[in-house]
Amino acid sequence: MRLLEDRIRIDGKVKDGDVLKVDGFLNHMIDVRFVAELGREFYRLYGSCGVNKILTIESSGIGVACLTAQFFDCPVVFAKKAKTTNIAPDTYTASVASYTHGNVNEILVSKEYLGPADKVLIIDDFLARGNALLGLMEIVKKSGAELVGAGIVIEKAYQDGGEKVRNMGVRVESLARIASMSVENGIEFCD
Amino acid sequence: MRLLEDRIRIDGKVKDGDVLKVDGFLNHMIDVRFVAELGREFYRLYGSCGVNKILTIESSGIGVACLTAQFFDCPVVFAKKAKTTNIAPDTYTASVASYTHGNVNEILVSKEYLGPADKVLIIDDFLARGNALLGLMEIVKKSGAELVGAGIVIEKAYQDGGEKVRNMGVRVESLARIASMSVENGIEFCD
Repeated sequence: MRLLEDRIRIDGKVKDGDVLKVDGFLNHMIDVRFVAELGREFYRLYGSCGVNKILTIESSGIGVACLTAQFFDCPVVFAKKAKTTNIAPDTYTASVASYTHGNVNEILVSKEYLGPADKVLIIDDFLARGNALLGLMEIVKKSGAELVGAGIVIEKAYQDGGEKVRNMGVRVESLARIASMSVENGIEFCD
Repeated sequence: MRLLEDRIRIDGKVKDGDVLKVDGFLNHMIDVRFVAELGREFYRLYGSCGVNKILTIESSGIGVACLTAQFFDCPVVFAKKAKTTNIAPDTYTASVASYTHGNVNEILVSKEYLGPADKVLIIDDFLARGNALLGLMEIVKKSGAELVGAGIVIEKAYQDGGEKVRNMGVRVESLARIASMSVENGIEFCD
């Protein structure tokens, strides 16, 4: 998506440790009008798939998920990061390793809000190693819901998460795919 | 707001420990169409105040803030809970005690995204003791921005947070104000 690539070129900051900061429009300040355009694009891609629920993960997925859900006219469920090791029995859970924070989070979704009647689109801001996405997929599977696919804002295509998930037969649509990135040479997008 | 009070009566669950769970439409599953109506009401209340930025706090404020910001056609900034004790020098910070989680969080906003040119509306899901709101107000003050007021979805009016902040001369508009609440007797709203 050209609009997004241009915005990343202008506002994205590449930092040491393979970090792309997009705090100016997505991860700290949310440019709501712009992010709604991303949502419109997800709707163009998945609008005919019967999606009745959007699933994301706190915190940074929530904004884009809500602005996308308006086009689908469906609710958002966001997986929570468990604050305690006592997981309530009425939840679906999965373990997600966080590269950014160097720890493992247990994520959970209440059984009340996801089940076999649901056709789920997963929305998230980043896809790199795929840990968050795989965790959300595990929760969808446990719930018996149907997974329609995943809508990702920015994919680091030089990491293996996207390939791994696509090889599992899951449709993944990323609005910007980064081919390479470095502090010295900036960002190259996939063709 | 009658629409919201009715929804709380139907979907809200009062739990021991003075907890009101509204996971079914606000805090875990987000009923995006409904929450956008709350945003429309905040716009009715604050639409003439020149708001150019909405400030909230992760995670549960983000959805309602984004859906509200669409009416104001302005960006959302969400304060982050610090993951480390090393706070970057380019941030405004405040300490917020969490009743729910029994701990103290340092919250932060990058100086890049809030400053003297801003007229800020704070949006949050709950107001009880007022700790989160006071923390956000401290950040607004440190930034030199002008605070227009606060828009709260649910205020526990029997706790002192709302009174405390209003006594400081800050406009606080809460869409539902709970007068009393208990597992035995359910929820009573203020007139």
